[in-house]
Amino acid sequence: MADIGEFGLIDRITAALPTPASDGGYAHVVVGTGDDAAVLAVPDGRIVASTDLLLENRHFRRDWSTATDVGRKAAARNFADIIAMGAVPTALLVGLAVPGGLELSWVDGLVAGFAEECAQVGARVVGGDVSACDTIVLSVTALGDLGGREPVRLGGARAGDVVAICGRLGWAAAGFAVLSRGFRSPVQVVNAHRRPEPPYAQGPRAAECGATAMTDVSDGLIADLGHIAAASGVRIDLRGEALAAPAKLRDVASALNVDPMTWVLTGGDDYALAATFPNFASVPPDWTSVGLVREGEGVRVDGRRWNEGGHEHFR
Amino acid sequence: MADIGEFGLIDRITAALPTPASDGGYAHVVVGTGDDAAVLAVPDGRIVASTDLLLENRHFRRDWSTATDVGRKAAARNFADIIAMGAVPTALLVGLAVPGGLELSWVDGLVAGFAEECAQVGARVVGGDVSACDTIVLSVTALGDLGGREPVRLGGARAGDVVAICGRLGWAAAGFAVLSRGFRSPVQVVNAHRRPEPPYAQGPRAAECGATAMTDVSDGLIADLGHIAAASGVRIDLRGEALAAPAKLRDVASALNVDPMTWVLTGGDDYALAATFPNFASVPPDWTSVGLVREGEGVRVDGRRWNEGGHEHFR
Repeated sequence: MADIGEFGLIDRITAALPTPASDGGYAHVVVGTGDDAAVLAVPDGRIVASTDLLLENRHFRRDWSTATDVGRKAAARNFADIIAMGAVPTALLVGLAVPGGLELSWVDGLVAGFAEECAQVGARVVGGDVSACDTIVLSVTALGDLGGREPVRLGGARAGDVVAICGRLGWAAAGFAVLSRGFRSPVQVVNAHRRPEPPYAQGPRAAECGATAMTDVSDGLIADLGHIAAASGVRIDLRGEALAAPAKLRDVASALNVDPMTWVLTGGDDYALAATFPNFASVPPDWTSVGLVREGEGVRVDGRRWNEGGHEHFR
Repeated sequence: MADIGEFGLIDRITAALPTPASDGGYAHVVVGTGDDAAVLAVPDGRIVASTDLLLENRHFRRDWSTATDVGRKAAARNFADIIAMGAVPTALLVGLAVPGGLELSWVDGLVAGFAEECAQVGARVVGGDVSACDTIVLSVTALGDLGGREPVRLGGARAGDVVAICGRLGWAAAGFAVLSRGFRSPVQVVNAHRRPEPPYAQGPRAAECGATAMTDVSDGLIADLGHIAAASGVRIDLRGEALAAPAKLRDVASALNVDPMTWVLTGGDDYALAATFPNFASVPPDWTSVGLVREGEGVRVDGRRWNEGGHEHFR
């Protein structure tokens, strides 16, 4: 890394990314990487923006995930925030600090991961910053386009609404548990931890179907629905049966002697979507109804409080 | 820090920032902090975006700068990238990782710094992320509005254009040199290092006056004009006389036994603007003409190459 220097690294990264020219003139990018700032077309007249900071050995481990895994997941968790507003991700800005002795192939893999996840949603890396640090630091900012839809906020749930989810719950947490105990399989849960698959199309879809509130499950279902409950001034009642862990998760949980419902209710790294809809008829086909919105506060599962919250970084 | 937790810290930070409501309904913010993502009005139909990563002891030192200094400078260097496109900064997203043992007052000061610098340009903090790390990590993403102007890029300089600068050069580098040697004065140069003052109004002004290329001076004048020269396929000839260090800088340089021109030509942290204009008549009043654009390549001072470049992080 030290051999090619900061500008050499920037050149290497930008050379590995699609350019507006090589890209068939991707319409959203007016000015891409290589200038003081990027310029993006915003035909909607509103932009959605979210940012995340990811630190080596806290948010990812190089011995657990490949560089491409890290890039894909870093992009995915930001894109999940964008789709949770009902928007389509359009652009990514990436800050990267790496040790001087890091092999260049790791950065190449990371950039490939960003590009791959961008390709999943039709977004582009439009800017970034490069620096040096003892451990790897990533900052990711995603921008998105509402396409004329109203943003779906946390505070719109009303008593009587139907609570529904889309995407997997607990799989990444199971993978984390497996990796934490020194195992590398079952590969389905380990891969779920390494490369989450947020249901990208379903955020805008839910908005079109009239979702009254929506969030991505990044802190755990109970915690994230708690944010909707608090912002909306309502209680959310979940049916445990509707959230029952699938056989694969139950098998892994049994092998590790843990309750699979803990993963389903408090695991965050799958980046599923959770939303409220005005009635059952408005819940889109790929979503699963898991509960109802009531007067009150907090989140209940089968009438009881779940006694574990989402993770906090300073605990 | 560990006492209040991640969500407590987020609440504390957002409570210290102006809200759309307390703010007289600041028109640009549709959805501010507290949701999955921010939503910003973009009446221009294009957004300008730039991101930076700042690391403790590499980009700032807590014994040299107050928390408020750090916040102001972190915002300022991003806003400088936005104005260098001819845009007006509108929003900031901030990622923050801090040690669990950090005093809360430091974070309060940092947030105050972000808010103060935002107030200078009329921007708002609209989103962020909080995490824990052994040393402080800041990521800052700034967004800006072109107000109907065309972005001023690096590649537009043409032979015959006039090169002009606006803002201070070398002052922050002098302050850095003073602090590096264990001194705390003269206060003018030390403060220049701590709190740069980019000429915020002059980026859009230069765009209105027909600037053909523009950049902020973050890597040093020679290096940053080098980016314009390379992107535009031209040579830039500077007149050393026009760049002569003012008396205060010469005094400090003399005391430290260094050449003040090194600070002026290679110091980056003042975030001045450098631009090219089609002719002398189009150079705005507050700008200083310092050279001409010619056929060729590279940057010369009085006909000679300057043998020091800007700083690179991996050297």
